[in-house]
Order: sequence, then structure tokens, then C-alpha cells
Amino acid sequence: MISSKPVRGTRDILPDEMKIRDRLEQKILEIYHAHGFSRIETPIMENLELLLGSEGGENLKMLFTILKRGEKLDLTKDASVLDLCDMGLRFDLTLPLSRFYSNNQAVLESPFKAIQIGNVFRAERPQKGRFRSFKQCDIDIIGDPSINAEIELMDTTAKALIAMGFKGFTIKVNHRQLLGAVIRKAGFAAESIGTVCISLDKLDKIGVAGVTQELLSKGHDQEKVECLMSCVNNINLENLNQWVDDPEAIEELTQVIKAVKTLSKEEFEVVFDFSLIRGMGYYTGLIFEVSYGPYGYSIAGGGRYDNMIGKYNKVSVPAVGFSIGFERIISILLEEEKDGRQAKKAIVMFYETQNDRFQDVIAEGDAWRDKGYLVNLVAMKKKFGKQIAAWNNGSYQGFLVFGRDKEIKTF
Amino acid sequence: MISSKPVRGTRDILPDEMKIRDRLEQKILEIYHAHGFSRIETPIMENLELLLGSEGGENLKMLFTILKRGEKLDLTKDASVLDLCDMGLRFDLTLPLSRFYSNNQAVLESPFKAIQIGNVFRAERPQKGRFRSFKQCDIDIIGDPSINAEIELMDTTAKALIAMGFKGFTIKVNHRQLLGAVIRKAGFAAESIGTVCISLDKLDKIGVAGVTQELLSKGHDQEKVECLMSCVNNINLENLNQWVDDPEAIEELTQVIKAVKTLSKEEFEVVFDFSLIRGMGYYTGLIFEVSYGPYGYSIAGGGRYDNMIGKYNKVSVPAVGFSIGFERIISILLEEEKDGRQAKKAIVMFYETQNDRFQDVIAEGDAWRDKGYLVNLVAMKKKFGKQIAAWNNGSYQGFLVFGRDKEIKTF
Repeated sequence: MISSKPVRGTRDILPDEMKIRDRLEQKILEIYHAHGFSRIETPIMENLELLLGSEGGENLKMLFTILKRGEKLDLTKDASVLDLCDMGLRFDLTLPLSRFYSNNQAVLESPFKAIQIGNVFRAERPQKGRFRSFKQCDIDIIGDPSINAEIELMDTTAKALIAMGFKGFTIKVNHRQLLGAVIRKAGFAAESIGTVCISLDKLDKIGVAGVTQELLSKGHDQEKVECLMSCVNNINLENLNQWVDDPEAIEELTQVIKAVKTLSKEEFEVVFDFSLIRGMGYYTGLIFEVSYGPYGYSIAGGGRYDNMIGKYNKVSVPAVGFSIGFERIISILLEEEKDGRQAKKAIVMFYETQNDRFQDVIAEGDAWRDKGYLVNLVAMKKKFGKQIAAWNNGSYQGFLVFGRDKEIKTF
Repeated sequence: MISSKPVRGTRDILPDEMKIRDRLEQKILEIYHAHGFSRIETPIMENLELLLGSEGGENLKMLFTILKRGEKLDLTKDASVLDLCDMGLRFDLTLPLSRFYSNNQAVLESPFKAIQIGNVFRAERPQKGRFRSFKQCDIDIIGDPSINAEIELMDTTAKALIAMGFKGFTIKVNHRQLLGAVIRKAGFAAESIGTVCISLDKLDKIGVAGVTQELLSKGHDQEKVECLMSCVNNINLENLNQWVDDPEAIEELTQVIKAVKTLSKEEFEVVFDFSLIRGMGYYTGLIFEVSYGPYGYSIAGGGRYDNMIGKYNKVSVPAVGFSIGFERIISILLEEEKDGRQAKKAIVMFYETQNDRFQDVIAEGDAWRDKGYLVNLVAMKKKFGKQIAAWNNGSYQGFLVFGRDKEIKTF
């Protein structure tokens, strides 16, 4: 007998959860549409060359690749992944969007405000709450170089989170340019910025002492490391210019936080967080992440990636995106039972297989549907009492027996 | 510069089409829910062993397979696809549903009425209107051995098609058992049924003469072939028992057609079609397909597959499914312009980047959103006349300028 388990690191989604997912997706879409965003869709497969040529950071190590077919597949010679495969599954929605924009720019509005809702694939080591196939909900503004794009994305994403029942979350904001400038000012070489950031990214896990240790063990000067950690400990929105000479980045960061604070109506926080790094190599400006409650992971994240579209396009096009981690949202809602599983207007109509003409049963079902009910037609079993008990599963408000009951009975 | 085209045989979906797709998907879901069906979701990847062990017919030749990762991948020895790959992309939604049902049966309603909407993948030779990644909308009833399941699926699918604007379509019905019995009665060996069916499947393309030719060239007796083709030419719902001794199959076929005809209210046709074959090897009983207008392809299809779930389960479970080909529906709707692209309540609000505080612009946008408008905020350009012309793209009812217009202006 063949196993009936889904493939490693993936899962089946059952009806109860699916109802919640569909409802949330509709809510998100509604808010995004109301703000002038338009939904698009790209294939889940992309050319392997395109995926590997991106600055996807760690995600490139977690690619799923698709075997070439027919003549293209030559197994006789020494084979690398690129010999064997010509496509891969997308690991995010940002790279496909950049390709999409270049491919379709001529017919798109400018600036183009995109919605993408779809699954992405990463061969992560399976662990609780981490899946190899998971849904993301992204909005992006392409073609607006101003910080209005960041403000609009934060405002719209926050509205979507609030509509889904989240309150009191925190948008953390940082700036890639600022991060680089601070690291350089502490005395590090420009080439070291990447590796220093990888260590800084661990601040919330291993603390200042741990990061100091790691930087020293990487061979960096004690003096530079201490200077950087002193900055990490003391930098804030008011004293930024003591630590860094980048008035443009400081102004962008300050203005965005100020504007979003005004828009927040105190339903959520927006703060500067110098320890926010975000893994992707493609970010160029402001970066942001949403944290919520006691959960040790972000529920949304994004940033500006002004140079990516230029790879597929003659001209570089400014772009910013904000992505909601749909699976994380769902797992929190399920855990906090925020889903509001209200009693639906749904009923079961039982019928007797021996006596009832099924087309009459369907017609009677339609009459109840016209009154606004969801109606599930089910054949009666001999042990009807036992059967009724089995259908009293919380999904139905009541039942009736065709040809006998004129009103809905409660279980 | 890297190509910005989507991978071969796939395509990008633009905002205008996406709006129609989302609306149709909602309509289909609404009707399916109203009939007691529940949506589920399975991963797009399945174990290769499971896919290859299915009776997927021609689709197995069109599998996309995913390269093993890390230690599991051994390129030193002679490699077959099964050495290289351990997963594949699903080619339909029926096989994953069977696996899903076995995996989750304990917590599912009985009978279980499933909705699945999702993409499937087949490495078809790219041609107009055929894609390598395409969406299907399936409903299945698992656990009902009676023809009520077929009747309910046909009724519900027909209601969904009507709601999407289709009228006057035809549900063609045949019975796998009947097909086998007729072929046997014409004198063919039981082992030949499969290959004879492959030829019969071409009736609508190459006609009776072509099929006769093909069967003869396959080496079948002229007498048997003539007997079969005489049946093909003359068999109908009234004279079935002249051609075949299978009262059970005849009764099922007749009853289903009669019941669905009653339910159709003459908005669509339901007919017996002995030339209907359907490729999949897993069908065991009634099979059906929906044809519409002059289009040479079916827009929906399905059948009973009582033995499939038994492969993953200790006991065999009866099952029937009906699948709408979403891409075909969309392409017909776009061609016939049935999409009803009505003027939406959507506006553009322009603002001046120099003078206007963006958070005030957002707040004013919200005020219009509260009145029910979709509002797209766009920065004014110097050449405002030209900009307005560019936004008069049919997607917006009008526009206004922040701080200047109190009412919506038409383009």
C-alpha cells in the first residue's frame, strides 16, 4: 500500500482551516483593492538561470529544481544541477514580480501597484510551523522613487492586519544605507558590511555579548567591534546624526516613521530598530518588518529594492514591497482562536434513498438555498440517531428530513 | 540581460484578466458551498512513487519531476528519473484528493463533499490555449456508491456554469462498463478494450471511416470492427439493450440522464454519447463531459473512480468527481466578452508631491473609501494633461485632485 502522507515538509489543509484561509484572503484582497492595488499572477516555475542570478541570499540554497525533459536531458556526461535542470520553483514573489514588470511594463499603469497572493517553495529543514510550501500575500509599488511608496505600503498592510483581527503589532523600520554607513564609520571595510550584518542579524537570538564574540572570532579588531556595539546599544531616532553621516537616509527614515505614526491612530506601533537586517541581498533602502505579541517571528516584512528590475530591463525602476506571511497569520489566529467561528447558516437535509426521488430532494434543497442557507444533502442511514450525532460537528446550525420536516431542527 | 519571459508553456496573468478570474472563482465557490461542499487544499508536489503508481494514462508521460536534494542525490551511478527525483508536480486534482481522503478520513464528514481549486502541471507541447500550468475547479463526492452522487455533481456543476454566464451547454454521459460490454459483445478480447477505446476516442476528430481504418490497421478482424462501428452508428438511449447485456449499467445511465434532464429546466442538454471515452484509466462507472458552442474542447469533465482510494486505504471507497477547466472557461468568456466589464466604483486621486502632506492624502483617500470607492493615490506629474489621458484606461470611473476637487471628475 502506498503512503497517504503528503510530501515531507508540506501538509494537507482541512475544511475548517480552509474556510478561515479563504475568508482572510478575501479580506486582504478587499483592502488592497480599495487602495488601488491590482492583482496579478505569475507561474510558480521560473527559469533556473533567473532564480540563480538573483540576490536571494540563503534562499538560493533551498531551491527546488525541475528535471529537464526529453532530449534536453543528457545523463551521459558529468552532470551539475544546471545540466540536469532548467527550471526551479519560486522562493519568493519579489523576483517573479520584477520579471513580470519587465515583461509587461508597456501595458501596466504607472506607478504600478501590484497584489500577489500565492505559494512559494523553500527546501527548509522541516520543523514546527515551517513549511516547504507556504503562502505569501505581497503588495508592491513599482515606479515611485519617493518615500510615499513606503508610507502607503505600511499604511495598507497595517489596515489589512487590523482587519484580520491583529492589534498592537509593531512595525520595525531600518535603512540599508544607514546600516552600511554606521558599520563603515565604526572602522570596518566596505567589503565586510555583508558579514557584519549576518552577525548583527543574530542580536535578538544571542544578544550583544554573543554578537561581539562572533565578530571577534571572525577576526575583526576589538576596537571596531566595541565601537559598533556601543552604537547598537545607544543609537536611536533622535541621536542618529551622532553615529552616521547620511542626511538623506536619516531624513527618509525619520519622515516615514513620523507619517506612519500619525496614520496609526495608536492602533499599532512604528519604531526604528537598528538590529533589523533582513536577509535578502536585493534591498537598497528602507527595510521593515512586523512583530506581534510573544511570537518570535515576524508576521510581515519588506523593503525597497531599486536595482532588481534593472536586471531585466533597459532602465532601472524604483520598487518597494511589503509581504504578509500568510501561514504565520493563520497559525496565530488558530492559536488565539480569533477566527470567530460563528454559527453559519448551514443545514443538513437528510433524505430516504428508498422513497425519495433525488431530483425532488435537490429541488427542495434549492428552495432552502434561495432563503440563504448552505444545504448539504445526505442519505439517511438505518441508525439515524447515531448518524445525526455524527453530523453535529459544529459546522451546521441544524438539520431537517426531506418530506417530513418543514422547519429546521437543532441537533 | 536575463530574459523576462515566463517559462515555456506558461504565462503571466495581467490585472484585467485577474479581476475576471477572481470574480469567477468566488462565484463557483459560492455555489459549491451552498450545496454543502467544503474546500480543501493539498500541496502541488506529491511523492513520485504515488504519481507513477496511478492510472493517469497519457498524463504520466507529461510529469514534471523535482530533483532530489543533498545526500539523497547520487550522480555517480547510472541514473534513471527515479534515481534523480523523489517528487513530482501533480497532473490532476483527483489523485491528490484520493491520497488526502485516506490521510484524513477519520476527521472528515461522511460522505465527504470536497471542493478543490488549484493549478495542475503537464508538460504538454505548447500550443494556442494549452498551458503547462493551468487551473482546475473540482468537486468530488467520496463515500456515496449511489447515482445520487453523479446527479448532484452534474446539477451543481451545471449551476456553476450557468452562474458564470454559460447557457445551452451539453452534458455528454457514457458508462465505462457499458463501453467495455459493447466492445466485448462485438467480439473483441477483453485485453483489447483499452486500445479499442483509444481509437474510439478519435471519433470526433477522424470520424467513423478514420476509426474503422485505424482499428483495421491495428490488426483487428474486419467483421468485429464493422459490428462495433454499426453499434457506434446506431446505439442510443432507447435501444441500449439490443447492443449490450448489462442491465445495471443501462439503468444507471438512464436514471441519471432522466433526473438531470428534469433538473435542467431546459437551460442545458444532457445526452448519452457512446463516443465519450475520457483518457484516465482510473474511471470505473459513469463518465461525463461538458461541451459548449463551437469550441472543439470540453469545458468540464469527470466520472466515477471507485477503486482509486483503495490503493492508499485498507478499504475501497466509492468516489465520483466533476472538474471545470478554468482556463477554457476564461478563454471563452474573454472571447465572447461575457465578462461584463462594468464601470467599477474606482477613482484616481492625484496629489502634488511638493505641497501635500502624504498622510493627509491617505486620510482623504480613506474618506472616499468609506463611501465605497476604490481609490488609487497617484503623484501629479508636470504634464498633468498627458498624465490624465494615460489614466483614462477604462479601469476608473473618474478622478480628483487632492485639496482642489470636492467631487469626482470624469476623464
